[in-house]
Amino acid sequence: MKFKARLPKEVEVLDSTLREGSQARGVSFDVQGKVRIALELDRLGVAFIEGGWPGSNPKDDEFFRVVREYSLEHAELVAFTSTRRKGVRAEDDPMLSKVLEAGTKWVTVFGKSWDLHVREVLRTSLEENLEMIYDTIRFFREHGIRVIFDAEHFFDGFRENREYALKVLETALEAGAERLVLADTNGGMLPHQVYAVVSEIVEKFGSRAVIGLHMHNDSGNAVANTLMGVLAGARHVQVTVNGIGERTGNADLCVVVPNLELKMNIRALRNPEGLRLLKRLSRLVYDLAGLEPNPYQPYVGDYAFAHKAGVHIDAVLKNPRAYEHIDPELVGNERRLTVSELSGAANLVAWAREELGLKLDKNDPAVRRALERIKRLEKEGYSFENAVATALLILLEELGLRGKPFEVRLWRVMSGGEEWGSAKSWAVVKLARGDREELAAGEGGGPVHAIDEALRGALSRLLPEAGDIRLIDYRVHLPIASKHTASEVRVEITFTDGKRTWTTTAISQNIIEASLKALVEGFEYHLLRRRLRGE
Amino acid sequence: MKFKARLPKEVEVLDSTLREGSQARGVSFDVQGKVRIALELDRLGVAFIEGGWPGSNPKDDEFFRVVREYSLEHAELVAFTSTRRKGVRAEDDPMLSKVLEAGTKWVTVFGKSWDLHVREVLRTSLEENLEMIYDTIRFFREHGIRVIFDAEHFFDGFRENREYALKVLETALEAGAERLVLADTNGGMLPHQVYAVVSEIVEKFGSRAVIGLHMHNDSGNAVANTLMGVLAGARHVQVTVNGIGERTGNADLCVVVPNLELKMNIRALRNPEGLRLLKRLSRLVYDLAGLEPNPYQPYVGDYAFAHKAGVHIDAVLKNPRAYEHIDPELVGNERRLTVSELSGAANLVAWAREELGLKLDKNDPAVRRALERIKRLEKEGYSFENAVATALLILLEELGLRGKPFEVRLWRVMSGGEEWGSAKSWAVVKLARGDREELAAGEGGGPVHAIDEALRGALSRLLPEAGDIRLIDYRVHLPIASKHTASEVRVEITFTDGKRTWTTTAISQNIIEASLKALVEGFEYHLLRRRLRGE
Repeated sequence: MKFKARLPKEVEVLDSTLREGSQARGVSFDVQGKVRIALELDRLGVAFIEGGWPGSNPKDDEFFRVVREYSLEHAELVAFTSTRRKGVRAEDDPMLSKVLEAGTKWVTVFGKSWDLHVREVLRTSLEENLEMIYDTIRFFREHGIRVIFDAEHFFDGFRENREYALKVLETALEAGAERLVLADTNGGMLPHQVYAVVSEIVEKFGSRAVIGLHMHNDSGNAVANTLMGVLAGARHVQVTVNGIGERTGNADLCVVVPNLELKMNIRALRNPEGLRLLKRLSRLVYDLAGLEPNPYQPYVGDYAFAHKAGVHIDAVLKNPRAYEHIDPELVGNERRLTVSELSGAANLVAWAREELGLKLDKNDPAVRRALERIKRLEKEGYSFENAVATALLILLEELGLRGKPFEVRLWRVMSGGEEWGSAKSWAVVKLARGDREELAAGEGGGPVHAIDEALRGALSRLLPEAGDIRLIDYRVHLPIASKHTASEVRVEITFTDGKRTWTTTAISQNIIEASLKALVEGFEYHLLRRRLRGE
Repeated sequence: MKFKARLPKEVEVLDSTLREGSQARGVSFDVQGKVRIALELDRLGVAFIEGGWPGSNPKDDEFFRVVREYSLEHAELVAFTSTRRKGVRAEDDPMLSKVLEAGTKWVTVFGKSWDLHVREVLRTSLEENLEMIYDTIRFFREHGIRVIFDAEHFFDGFRENREYALKVLETALEAGAERLVLADTNGGMLPHQVYAVVSEIVEKFGSRAVIGLHMHNDSGNAVANTLMGVLAGARHVQVTVNGIGERTGNADLCVVVPNLELKMNIRALRNPEGLRLLKRLSRLVYDLAGLEPNPYQPYVGDYAFAHKAGVHIDAVLKNPRAYEHIDPELVGNERRLTVSELSGAANLVAWAREELGLKLDKNDPAVRRALERIKRLEKEGYSFENAVATALLILLEELGLRGKPFEVRLWRVMSGGEEWGSAKSWAVVKLARGDREELAAGEGGGPVHAIDEALRGALSRLLPEAGDIRLIDYRVHLPIASKHTASEVRVEITFTDGKRTWTTTAISQNIIEASLKALVEGFEYHLLRRRLRGE
């Protein structure tokens, strides 16, 4: 048996990590984290970023407000919403107006395509459901917004009431939807079934709309179902980073995209270098979602190219193809034979070039020394996967290029409260630059806020050129297994000057100290970087 | 396009958890654990249990010695081994004699079918490799042992030197192998490619041997590739429980088997009730392997039938088919609804009974009021998924049963440092109980440690019966990080008295205040709980 050769040159990727991923149990994003993920997805080069469901919770509204301040290079932002409520006009449904406030050019409208859902969940007539779909899509088209229609439970509906499921698609198309997305919402389909159904839909509707796929993983086939759908003629794939989503999750961007690009020769990312950012993106999403990374994950997992059996290690050293289906560097991953390997130096050198414009040799003794320090710190609980700025400061120190622009001489923070909710903190910081000293105070709800204020106060007098640096993310991790109140904490802070972002990290038993150190390094890195690049 | 209808009534399952699974990074079984897993696999009803590689390590030899004492009902034990070494006779290869000592009726012999491996890894001639395969299989046949031949890297070999790959299968068949297993050892194949290759092999060899599949998961398609191979005519599938294996692992028994039985109507287990043991088996293997269970795993994961979004929960309560692809009980799993939603009242009432011995009605106005407060707090960033104790304190308050055993009157914390690493904190806490007040001090590396010490000091004098409570976990979350270092933090603390554990949570802009509140609630809950249960 042969598959019809319908392989396209490219497909468009809609990432729904920020919407569908938020529905995963155990996952909780904050607004800042959502913005960071959106920026990384744009850098990767996906076509659409589904950011949330306006009106469903304040966080999603806030996200659309905040993300507007950034200009995206590759991706379109998409808001997600349901069809209008039964029995009201689209213009009177407040949830739909919320989408207009979000200000995106695209909206995903999900509607019911399984009659069981219309009858038993919506509890309305099959006819009214079609009108809800039509009205909602028309409403957005009349406001100049382009529409992706997600046909919820399409595969179940098609099996049980084929005629109605087709009518749903026809209705969406007539109302002006430009994408018809077939969702396996219960995730129970198998690859050959998906291939058959999608083939038929592409035959019927493929000339009038782009056919898309939205696959859940309940049968363990979300990735395969997506690929088989593309083979059958779909041109739009909906995925989430690490496959996070309701229940068992969704088709994993980190697996679908490299399969398309590397194995099927189909372009999926608009940035030709995007694939190399894959492992980093995967890790970032795990971190911001509050999940442990899955080391066994295909392509991007820590063990994806880790060899354990002696015969495998021996063979891979003779020829990597012996036990590796792709070159791990293509997706930003690396081979692991035992514990820590030779590849760290290559990363560090690449970062120094990209971030600081320094051209270094992998075998430079300073690079080696920096790498040893980094590895030692990692054993103590540090993690540099995100915190490149801190790793580069260590490298600059080993290169003799870290002339400290300023130093912290002393800090004190007082905190206190009586009734719950009355807590306040006050901080004092003394900075020095050569002979000059500056003392400043800060006040805040918490101790870290107070010390941040004090540091900025002193810095603005000592080094006005530190300029307009904003924090876009502040996180606390407990790196080491014994998680008591006396544990060490690791702080990670992300900064921006409006053009670039950078992240520092520090560890201490004292959360205020760790925060202060990461703040100081963030300012220091910015100043050094500007000097090195002559900006 | 239609798939040829070659669907069989049944396939045979070979489980390789004990052999391939042992090669997974992070996995380590002991002999007793291997025996327990073998017995459970037999109960489930797999056809073959591949127990290990005799001679490769003492544990595997010991396993075959010990397991012989048990009589299995459904499964055949299989030893695993390589072809003979190059340049020696099969009868002179000590590894092959070890297999005879293992005393199994079946052996899996793996041999090279990719010419690249023969040349670059074995470093021998293509002809000698064929002889190694032939001699090894003949050797076992002459000792009355039946042979499963695993053609390593068959798919890569077939693509790059098709003629040779076919010669390998022909040789194994001529030597007396009864199963020809096509292995995707690098795991890089996609489902449509597997379907095409397996179809061809079944055409050529299917009448003379059972064709089998051994699929790795490097492209994220191990399950789909196995199913597509069965569709193409394979009748023997090799899997591991939870998919554990080299790198990204193998086709997961816990997903392949229910897909075959429930979705394709193909019998895979010899025990008709076996499927219901699936979740238990999955958990047992995680435990004995020393791995954390993956809650997102299809069919058997804790979240496989857990519903989080409000619309999903609402629908599932109307009709479970709305968001469940199968009845979870079929695989020994169960439905889970999250805390805060419609199910909240039922959960809260169940917790109150289980934890505090209180028998309440779901419609009790106090229960309703408590639930409303819980929902409001969740909107502010609280999460009660783990922190049941804090939810129950709210309920007790609404029931008029939260007579505070003590109160915090005042707290102060000072922190400071000069050099990095010199930070210290000192705390004062004043507690009150009726007219009595107690003031105590505490010192620590960080502010939370210091306040924890001060609280315990004051409490030990005020309420010695608070007794010997230990913290076993302390975590900080940033729930709504819109304000950076001024953000609110959520603290979650887990306590134990040696018999039970309980978890509290609190939010504040001030991490010290949030920690103190969660600590105070942990002690308070313990005291109230003991009183309510009359302990």
